[in-house]
Amino acid sequence: MPGVTQCRARNQHPARLMVDTISSLASIDYRMDEWGVDITVGGSQKGLMLPPGLSFNAVNEKALQATKSARLPRAYWNWEEMLASNQAGFFPYTPATNLLYGLREALDMLQEEGLDKVFARHARHGEATRRAVRAWGLEILCVEPNEYSNSLTALVMPEGHDSDYVRKVILERFDMSLGAGLGKLKGRVFRIGHLGHFNDLMLAGTLCGTEMGLALAGVPIRKGGVQAALDYLATPTTGGVRTARALA
Amino acid sequence: MPGVTQCRARNQHPARLMVDTISSLASIDYRMDEWGVDITVGGSQKGLMLPPGLSFNAVNEKALQATKSARLPRAYWNWEEMLASNQAGFFPYTPATNLLYGLREALDMLQEEGLDKVFARHARHGEATRRAVRAWGLEILCVEPNEYSNSLTALVMPEGHDSDYVRKVILERFDMSLGAGLGKLKGRVFRIGHLGHFNDLMLAGTLCGTEMGLALAGVPIRKGGVQAALDYLATPTTGGVRTARALA
Amino acid sequence: MPGVTQCRARNQHPARLMVDTISSLASIDYRMDEWGVDITVGGSQKGLMLPPGLSFNAVNEKALQATKSARLPRAYWNWEEMLASNQAGFFPYTPATNLLYGLREALDMLQEEGLDKVFARHARHGEATRRAVRAWGLEILCVEPNEYSNSLTALVMPEGHDSDYVRKVILERFDMSLGAGLGKLKGRVFRIGHLGHFNDLMLAGTLCGTEMGLALAGVPIRKGGVQAALDYLATPTTGGVRTARALA
Amino acid sequence: MPGVTQCRARNQHPARLMVDTISSLASIDYRMDEWGVDITVGGSQKGLMLPPGLSFNAVNEKALQATKSARLPRAYWNWEEMLASNQAGFFPYTPATNLLYGLREALDMLQEEGLDKVFARHARHGEATRRAVRAWGLEILCVEPNEYSNSLTALVMPEGHDSDYVRKVILERFDMSLGAGLGKLKGRVFRIGHLGHFNDLMLAGTLCGTEMGLALAGVPIRKGGVQAALDYLATPTTGGVRTARALA
Repeated sequence: MPGVTQCRARNQHPARLMVDTISSLASIDYRMDEWGVDITVGGSQKGLMLPPGLSFNAVNEKALQATKSARLPRAYWNWEEMLASNQAGFFPYTPATNLLYGLREALDMLQEEGLDKVFARHARHGEATRRAVRAWGLEILCVEPNEYSNSLTALVMPEGHDSDYVRKVILERFDMSLGAGLGKLKGRVFRIGHLGHFNDLMLAGTLCGTEMGLALAGVPIRKGGVQAALDYLATPTTGGVRTARALA
Repeated sequence: MPGVTQCRARNQHPARLMVDTISSLASIDYRMDEWGVDITVGGSQKGLMLPPGLSFNAVNEKALQATKSARLPRAYWNWEEMLASNQAGFFPYTPATNLLYGLREALDMLQEEGLDKVFARHARHGEATRRAVRAWGLEILCVEPNEYSNSLTALVMPEGHDSDYVRKVILERFDMSLGAGLGKLKGRVFRIGHLGHFNDLMLAGTLCGTEMGLALAGVPIRKGGVQAALDYLATPTTGGVRTARALA
Repeated sequence: MPGVTQCRARNQHPARLMVDTISSLASIDYRMDEWGVDITVGGSQKGLMLPPGLSFNAVNEKALQATKSARLPRAYWNWEEMLASNQAGFFPYTPATNLLYGLREALDMLQEEGLDKVFARHARHGEATRRAVRAWGLEILCVEPNEYSNSLTALVMPEGHDSDYVRKVILERFDMSLGAGLGKLKGRVFRIGHLGHFNDLMLAGTLCGTEMGLALAGVPIRKGGVQAALDYLATPTTGGVRTARALA
Repeated sequence: MPGVTQCRARNQHPARLMVDTISSLASIDYRMDEWGVDITVGGSQKGLMLPPGLSFNAVNEKALQATKSARLPRAYWNWEEMLASNQAGFFPYTPATNLLYGLREALDMLQEEGLDKVFARHARHGEATRRAVRAWGLEILCVEPNEYSNSLTALVMPEGHDSDYVRKVILERFDMSLGAGLGKLKGRVFRIGHLGHFNDLMLAGTLCGTEMGLALAGVPIRKGGVQAALDYLATPTTGGVRTARALA
């Protein structure tokens, strides 16, 4: 983590640092205290392997102090009522109870696999996906290789090709829904998610659907993306393999 | 169906013809009356897309008559009590009620897709699988190409390779359970099932796991099986595509 | 509805009328437009028979206009982004998708039963509960009989008895969780909910647990509450009976 | 168990003793070895709290030996193939896998509650039900009080009243399905099941529906059956209470 030194410095700064971990929490290493983050926002529907419906705020003392003097009207960011109820194991409002039971199971599953293995699994899947994209001759939407995401990969369409049309072809032909480009990236990229409750063969099927769909939608790609991913996934390492048990 | 003429002839024969459709019913065309079959045995857990737990007997008049004079002690094959209760919508013994609700939904799903499309989908998946096997340089356990199964494909191991070891590697590394060879085929073949609630990307993921697993288990194969299957699956026909809807 | 005339008058008033229907929507008749309500708040977890996790805002033109000139910082009450996305069938943020599928089924169930019958069923259950409470010699927390709730009934404890202790006894002995008194009613009342996916025998079991639990907790009651409720529920009307079908 | 001495004697007898425990296993004490039983038949759908679909045979050495010399054609009673497969944790045929997972959880639940408490709970519910039946002035179908069943109670209809009509009224009006009288008891008795995943308030609701339904169907009963059951269930013992935890 190259930014640790800056983080410490920043810790002296009066501003608060807030990190959105919705598509990374429990998929990629994240260290709120060590990295000097004051507020973390997370959600249930990605790395925590649950349906959407829960959102989390983790706040440190520095963030809590800010709320005492702040005059900004708040609802979501007003943590005091929640903290008071939580101490007795309750909520000030009716929570999405069923998802809390699911969360307990999800946390058990993550502990059972081990966070190190969870992160290594996502790293493998991210690398396999990027090898597929490069083999297809397409561009990954990320200038800085150090900052590649291990939980999702955005593919840039060649000039003249609409990513939403590709997504539509893939949805209709293969019943697979890929993520849209948002904002100014709308129509220019689509996103492959490779996170959460996900294993090698789910990734392989995903890349197969993407390779076939790109061809069917008329995007000029080279074949071989799936093959490149398989070559990488089949290396005889056990690192990051979800269901690894000792072979006889 | 080349055997129809013989079937008619056979219909005059005093023996009864019984067909086991457990791995084919609702995946491959089957015409009990037209083909002169007297007794059909089916199960819930394959083409009917349900958990295991239900088995069906379909019997014609000729089979029913045989039970009147037969002196063989019977339990499963004694249909009279069942037929008597069924007329009023009941069962003589406690049935697996929950699976009957599931069956109703499964039948709705098959009607919704249309049996013709269901069969065409399985034919595509069978053909794609066989293309993969041939590209790997392995043998399909079926002498007569007219008789290839569209619901499962058995792969013969090269001399000196144990199919149960391959299955074990694939299960442990990729969490995918392939079918064992039974009886004298034990250790010599494994089976890829491609039937029931199954679509192109599930097949693609299955073939990816098989290709990687064969290599990891040291079976000498040529790469390119997955690619051959994708080339076939991505042809721009809509025939047999499960989720085909009109593209704009 | 005695207040309709006032409502019309109020409609001329510049203030907006907001109604919280969380424990009444789809259990008790409610007419937003006819009664001149500008903003309605609802939730998934009561009359809509779903787990908690969805909340609804229904807003009229008058409420929408207010948001254009209002300077109050808003999050929940800022509907424009939601309305823009909803027109295309989408949401500006990730919704609790699974509950939306449940909501579709819940609405089908309500239509199937018929709202008139749903409301009559809740009216019967409310009246049966109140008859039980009166037979026990306890007080209902509602001064004005015209305003009794048909979806829940709050019981006032006699002086010197703690409603939270009664709730605890009933939870531990009968595994039934009754609602607590909130705010200044804490410890003085508990609430019996009789709403949503609820039928005569669920109410009967609830009242049995309440009658036994009150006695076990030492609250001085007369027996006979359950009997009074059964006498009312067993009257040979079909009005409001959930599963009424023609008797032969 | 008054029959233990005879059982020991019977153990010398060449016949095999087979016991059907379908509606009693895991609800009422049962000791196969101690009571000299050779073959026990059980099912998933009663005391084991699962959907129907699994049946069990427990056989002792004496029963197994009989199969070696027996010439009776057998299917269900031919255990050797099953025993051979079971040793390796497998089945000779496709089992109802999903129910096996359910069975594991059901056994955990029974162990967690403790078999002694499970049996005491059923004894309380049986006794409460019988008190209700007597208070209604109806007859229990069991001549010998020592042999009352703690898992179900059959009620005899007064002359001129059809138990199937009572069942129909209760099903249509209260959505509760009671058991029919079978064979020569058809129309003369109905059965209240009080077994498996069942607690005091489920029983109370069941008895409320029965009392109301008997009256609606015109059967001459005295009121007070529910009250008699509640008086018994509310005694301050903790014996057999499912959810008993220490009260503060």
